[in-house]
Amino acid sequence: MQVNPTSDEKETGRIEAFSDGVFAIAITLLVLNIRVPQTQEVLPSLGLLTLLLRQWPFFLAFFLSFMTILVMWVNHHTLFNHIRRTDGPFLFLNGFLLLLVTFVPFPTALLAEFIEHSEAKVAAVVYSGTYLCIALAFSALWKYASTNYRLLDKHISRAQVERINIHYRVGPPAYLVAFVVSFLNVAASVGICMLLALWFTYTASFSRRLNS
Amino acid sequence: MQVNPTSDEKETGRIEAFSDGVFAIAITLLVLNIRVPQTQEVLPSLGLLTLLLRQWPFFLAFFLSFMTILVMWVNHHTLFNHIRRTDGPFLFLNGFLLLLVTFVPFPTALLAEFIEHSEAKVAAVVYSGTYLCIALAFSALWKYASTNYRLLDKHISRAQVERINIHYRVGPPAYLVAFVVSFLNVAASVGICMLLALWFTYTASFSRRLNS
Amino acid sequence: MQVNPTSDEKETGRIEAFSDGVFAIAITLLVLNIRVPQTQEVLPSLGLLTLLLRQWPFFLAFFLSFMTILVMWVNHHTLFNHIRRTDGPFLFLNGFLLLLVTFVPFPTALLAEFIEHSEAKVAAVVYSGTYLCIALAFSALWKYASTNYRLLDKHISRAQVERINIHYRVGPPAYLVAFVVSFLNVAASVGICMLLALWFTYTASFSRRLNS
Amino acid sequence: MQVNPTSDEKETGRIEAFSDGVFAIAITLLVLNIRVPQTQEVLPSLGLLTLLLRQWPFFLAFFLSFMTILVMWVNHHTLFNHIRRTDGPFLFLNGFLLLLVTFVPFPTALLAEFIEHSEAKVAAVVYSGTYLCIALAFSALWKYASTNYRLLDKHISRAQVERINIHYRVGPPAYLVAFVVSFLNVAASVGICMLLALWFTYTASFSRRLNS
Repeated sequence: MQVNPTSDEKETGRIEAFSDGVFAIAITLLVLNIRVPQTQEVLPSLGLLTLLLRQWPFFLAFFLSFMTILVMWVNHHTLFNHIRRTDGPFLFLNGFLLLLVTFVPFPTALLAEFIEHSEAKVAAVVYSGTYLCIALAFSALWKYASTNYRLLDKHISRAQVERINIHYRVGPPAYLVAFVVSFLNVAASVGICMLLALWFTYTASFSRRLNS
Repeated sequence: MQVNPTSDEKETGRIEAFSDGVFAIAITLLVLNIRVPQTQEVLPSLGLLTLLLRQWPFFLAFFLSFMTILVMWVNHHTLFNHIRRTDGPFLFLNGFLLLLVTFVPFPTALLAEFIEHSEAKVAAVVYSGTYLCIALAFSALWKYASTNYRLLDKHISRAQVERINIHYRVGPPAYLVAFVVSFLNVAASVGICMLLALWFTYTASFSRRLNS
Repeated sequence: MQVNPTSDEKETGRIEAFSDGVFAIAITLLVLNIRVPQTQEVLPSLGLLTLLLRQWPFFLAFFLSFMTILVMWVNHHTLFNHIRRTDGPFLFLNGFLLLLVTFVPFPTALLAEFIEHSEAKVAAVVYSGTYLCIALAFSALWKYASTNYRLLDKHISRAQVERINIHYRVGPPAYLVAFVVSFLNVAASVGICMLLALWFTYTASFSRRLNS
Repeated sequence: MQVNPTSDEKETGRIEAFSDGVFAIAITLLVLNIRVPQTQEVLPSLGLLTLLLRQWPFFLAFFLSFMTILVMWVNHHTLFNHIRRTDGPFLFLNGFLLLLVTFVPFPTALLAEFIEHSEAKVAAVVYSGTYLCIALAFSALWKYASTNYRLLDKHISRAQVERINIHYRVGPPAYLVAFVVSFLNVAASVGICMLLALWFTYTASFSRRLNS
C-alpha cells in the first residue's frame, strides 16, 4: 500500500485540480444571474438608473455568493494541504460537496428574485439551507480525513489538526442559526449569511499562514 | 519511436487535462437547466413552495446527471492511470467520448421537461440512448487501448487488466437494458439509470485502490 | 536573453494552459445552442419526436463545430510542441486566434437557426467566413513562429517544419473555397466545411506521431 | 516561516491556476451576450444582414471586453512572475480583483444594449466605472505586494520594480478620465476605453521581455 507514495500525491492532485475547475466555473457563472435591462423597459417615468437600482438584490446576491464560493475554495485548499491519501468514502464525500457547490447559482438566483416578495421566506430557507448542507459536507469531509490521521500527512502536529477542528466546529452551527432564523425573518437570515461570508473571508485570508 | 518516452507521458497528460476541463464544465453547466420561478408566477392559490416542488424532475435530473458525469470522470482517470502512450485512433475515440459528455445537459433538460408529459417516452429514449452511447464509447476506448497492451503501461499485470475488463463488460449491457426498457416504461428506465449511477458511484469510490 | 531558458518554457506552458481552458469552455458551451422543446409546443398533430427531428440543423451544427474546435485544439498543441519561446507579436496573434475560437458558438447558432430559411446564405457566409479567419490566424501564428526558426525548438529538423508548412498551406485555401461557395450554394459550403472537419480530424488523429 | 519555501511557490501556483480558470471562463462567456436573430424577425423589408449589422454594438462590446480581459490576464501573469509569497491581505485583494473580472460580462452587455439609446450615458458610466475599479484593484494588488519587497522575489532589481510601478501609475488615471468623460460623452468614453485596450494590448505584447 505504501509501495508508491507519489501515486497517492498524484491522485490527490487530480481531485484538487478537478475541484478547482468546478469552483472556478461555478463562481464565474454567478454573473449570468444578473439580468440586463432591455431598452423597451426604459420609460420616461422609469430611467435605466432606476431599473438598475431596483435590481439591487441581484447585485447583493452576486456579491454574497461570490464571497462564499471563494472562501469555500480557500478552505478546500487548506484542507487538501493536509491530506496525502484518498480513498473511496473520501472521493464520495468530495463529490457530494462539489454537487452542492455547482448548485449554488440556483438558490442565489431564487433569493434575488424573491427577496422583496411576500414569499421571500421560502427562498431564504432554500438559500440558507444550501449553505448549511455545504458546511455539513465540509465538516464531514474533514472529520473523515482527520479521524485517526486516516488520510492526513503524518508530519502535521496534533495542535494544527485541533486548530482546524475548531474552524469546522464553527461553520455548521453558525449556518444552522441562519437556517432556523430564515423561517422567522428573511433579512436577519441573509444578514447572518453575509456576516459569515465576511468573517470566513477575513479568517481565511488572515489566518492562512497559521493553518498551512 | 521510443527515443523520447517522456514526450508520450506529456502527451497523455495534456489529453487528460483537456478532458478534465470538459468534464468540469459539463458538470457545472447542469445547474443552468433548473429554471428559477419568476415572481409573477406566484399566485395566492400557488405559492413558491408548490412551484419549487413541481420542479422536482429538474432537481432529480440535475442530481442524476451530476452523479453520472462524476462517475465518468472517475472512470476516465482510472483508465488513463493505466495508459502510457496515445495514437491517432485513441485520440479520435476520446474525442467522440467528450462529444457525448458535453451533450449530456441536453437529454437531461429534455427528460426533466417531459417526464410528466404524455410524450415522456421519447425523452427517456433519448436520455438512456445517450448513456448507452457513452458506455459503448468508454468500452471501445478501453478495448482499443488494452488489446495486446497497445497503449498500456507494461508494468500492469494481466489480472489488473482483466479486472477492468469485467467493469467495462457490465456498463454497455446494463445501459442497453435501460434503453430497451425506456420504450416500455419511463419510470423503470429512469430508475435503472439511477441505480446504475449509484452503483457505479459506489464501485468507483470504494474499489479505486484495487484498480489503481 | 538565454540566461534563463526554463523561464521561457514556463511562459509557453502558461499560454498553452490558458488557451486549453478557452478551447475546453468554448467546446462545452456549444450544447447550450440546442434548444429544449417545451411541453406546450407538443400538439396532437406534432409529437416530440417530430419537434426534435425538425431541430436537425442544431444537432448537425453542434456536431460540426465540436469536431472543428477539437481539431483546432489538437493543431494548437502540435504547434506548441515545436515552440520553445514566446514574444510580443506571437502573444498578440495567439490572442487573436482565441478571440475567434470563443466566437465560434455564435456563427454556429446562426447557421442552425437559418439553414432552412431563405436567408440561409448570409448565415453560411458568416459561418464559413469565421472558419476562414481561423485558418488564416493559425497560418499566421505558425508562419511567424517558424520563419528563421524564430520561436522554434532548434532540435526540430527542416523536414519536420516543412511537413507542418504543407499542413498550413492546405487550410486557408480550402476554407476560402468554402467561403466563396457560401455565396452561391449553402448546402455545398456546409458540406465542404464538414468534409474539412472530418479530413482534419482524420489527419490530426492519424498523423500525429509524424508531426510530434 | 522560511522552513519550507517551496510550499510558498506551490501556494502562489495554485492561486494563479485558479485565477487563470476564472479569466478563461469570463472571456469565453462574453460570446453569450451576442444574441442570435430569430427566423421570424427577418421580414421582406428587413433582411438577416441588416439585422446583424444593427447588432454592431454587441460585436464591438464583445471585441472590446475580450481584448481587455486578455490584457488583464497578461498583466496578472506578469505580476505573479515577480511574486514568491502570499499572505492574507494579498489573497483578499486578488479575490476582489477576480470578483470584478467575473462581473465584466454584465456591463459589457449593458453597454451593447443601450449604446444607441437615450440612456446610453448610464451604461457608459457603469462600463467605464467597472474598468476603473479593476485598474484600482490591480494597482492595489501590486502596491501591496511590492512595498518593501513584501511578497516579491528578492532577485528582482529595483529598476524592474520601478518599471512596473510606472505601468500601474498609468492605468488608474487613464480609466478615471474614461469614467469622468462617460458623464459627458458616451462615444468619447468608449473610444478612450478602446484606445486603452489596444494600447495595453500593444504594450503587454511587445514589452513583455522587458518586464519578465
